[in-house]
Amino acid sequence: MYRRRVEFADTDTANLIHFTALMRFMEEAEHAFYRSLDFHGYRWSEASVFGMPRVSVSCDYLGAVRYGDVVEVRLQVREVRTKAIRYAAEFTIDGSEGREIVARSDWTVVCARRDHGSRDWRGVEIPARLRRQLEVASRATRWRGLRRRERSRRGGRGRR
Amino acid sequence: MYRRRVEFADTDTANLIHFTALMRFMEEAEHAFYRSLDFHGYRWSEASVFGMPRVSVSCDYLGAVRYGDVVEVRLQVREVRTKAIRYAAEFTIDGSEGREIVARSDWTVVCARRDHGSRDWRGVEIPARLRRQLEVASRATRWRGLRRRERSRRGGRGRR
Amino acid sequence: MYRRRVEFADTDTANLIHFTALMRFMEEAEHAFYRSLDFHGYRWSEASVFGMPRVSVSCDYLGAVRYGDVVEVRLQVREVRTKAIRYAAEFTIDGSEGREIVARSDWTVVCARRDHGSRDWRGVEIPARLRRQLEVASRATRWRGLRRRERSRRGGRGRR
Amino acid sequence: MYRRRVEFADTDTANLIHFTALMRFMEEAEHAFYRSLDFHGYRWSEASVFGMPRVSVSCDYLGAVRYGDVVEVRLQVREVRTKAIRYAAEFTIDGSEGREIVARSDWTVVCARRDHGSRDWRGVEIPARLRRQLEVASRATRWRGLRRRERSRRGGRGRR
Repeated sequence: MYRRRVEFADTDTANLIHFTALMRFMEEAEHAFYRSLDFHGYRWSEASVFGMPRVSVSCDYLGAVRYGDVVEVRLQVREVRTKAIRYAAEFTIDGSEGREIVARSDWTVVCARRDHGSRDWRGVEIPARLRRQLEVASRATRWRGLRRRERSRRGGRGRR
Repeated sequence: MYRRRVEFADTDTANLIHFTALMRFMEEAEHAFYRSLDFHGYRWSEASVFGMPRVSVSCDYLGAVRYGDVVEVRLQVREVRTKAIRYAAEFTIDGSEGREIVARSDWTVVCARRDHGSRDWRGVEIPARLRRQLEVASRATRWRGLRRRERSRRGGRGRR
Repeated sequence: MYRRRVEFADTDTANLIHFTALMRFMEEAEHAFYRSLDFHGYRWSEASVFGMPRVSVSCDYLGAVRYGDVVEVRLQVREVRTKAIRYAAEFTIDGSEGREIVARSDWTVVCARRDHGSRDWRGVEIPARLRRQLEVASRATRWRGLRRRERSRRGGRGRR
Repeated sequence: MYRRRVEFADTDTANLIHFTALMRFMEEAEHAFYRSLDFHGYRWSEASVFGMPRVSVSCDYLGAVRYGDVVEVRLQVREVRTKAIRYAAEFTIDGSEGREIVARSDWTVVCARRDHGSRDWRGVEIPARLRRQLEVASRATRWRGLRRRERSRRGGRGRR
């Protein structure tokens, strides 16, 4: 679980977190997950740069998040493809009553490389060790609850 | 159409626009649309504050966007409900070959009010004049092309 | 000392931290300092809002800060006036050789209040308990080293 | 003169522009100035990257700036050195009474290059054509008023 306090610069004049700030927390949680695997979601070398850009992002905002709140991000590996990984996350506020879910997010990243002499990123396969770690994380039982909730959401009212 | 240059602060160390910056452009385009209708997407008065927070956002990133690019955002009113509005947008880069679509976005906002003595926003109906303007914009023929493309996308591979 | 990792969204296409991101870290360190005193740098109540906006900020950028670096911010209370507080900070990178100072910052905040029926902030005196705590922090010996360094800087080449 | 509307994401929960947003406008004005000279403040080539990072920034915040305000940035070239340029800017709000100055800023950038195989930027001389253009801009009479005001500020109360 990744924890991140809502700082002053993350808020807006509606007295709430700006919707893009929560998406930054989402990316931070993903990069923290890579660090926990001793992997780097972005890596510069003398020949090239490795990165994991987002190709698709969606987020539902379900409850108010304000300055000073400590947001908890629970990340789930949803799918491991050849070059892409799909994640989901649930966001709650530390200490809130009933740990109400204030946001739900779903996104896909691709592994990519850019040689220094080129401006273009090209997709590459997920490195083998990371793939194995992702598959372990994806099977971890702690996510069962989330999967079940999602099935019922899908059943109940379609994708969204 | 809303035009917005990618500034230095909008980029990241992948030498691309940060994915949240494009989402800010999306919100800017929406607020510019309100101004074109002589409406304000956020309004403070002595008794309360009116706002239009996002409750659901999704974006597909299809092509590279870099420092200095001028992004064009074509906004579409997709659905006008009692308290909520659903928008879609296509993003292209000014002067790019074939005006390739570099991103597609879909989001929903709600009209909401907060009395100054309260921390909580509550949903309110879309103001009547805005509703009429949104319905006109929603019917405008210039969006037919986009709708047609979307139908074929849906048919071909599901919603996303 | 406040520690903050440089996240992907904090960087720019120069492959460095964006200069405004370091200024956000500066504000975060100040708000963390308030929390350590059981005080809140921003507080909403039913009648009014209390805040501490910055009225003057300066920063010298002395060394490279990149994605993934953990920045350490050492905050110093420099001066406690009736309504205003002047801070300084030194920024280093955790684990870097010799803990080279990568930035130095100096800024002034004022205590201010805004009644909900008004758009305008007005300066107010520093709350009495906070004032006492700031004076203690200002005298704390751990800052002697910083003060000495600064005197020699001033002597050597003027204010900056 | 560079004009920039304060967007929703630029504000914070104090119902003002966040102080770092005004600094982004400052950088945007500088880059717009380069474009007006047919120059690029950041340029990627197959061998290296050219950029103009800020090494020192200061800003005084003098008046309230809020969502929807259109900020006008008047840029002045203050000093052209071998590798560095010092700028100043005054910020006003379009349509405000008396065009009150809401902020004043002063900053220094250096010209720098980074070869793709290296992580380090090194200072380089200001390109000759840009230097000539900067010197012309620096002498332009339209800044006399600002210089005079500054002299009197300096005389009155030191650097700031």
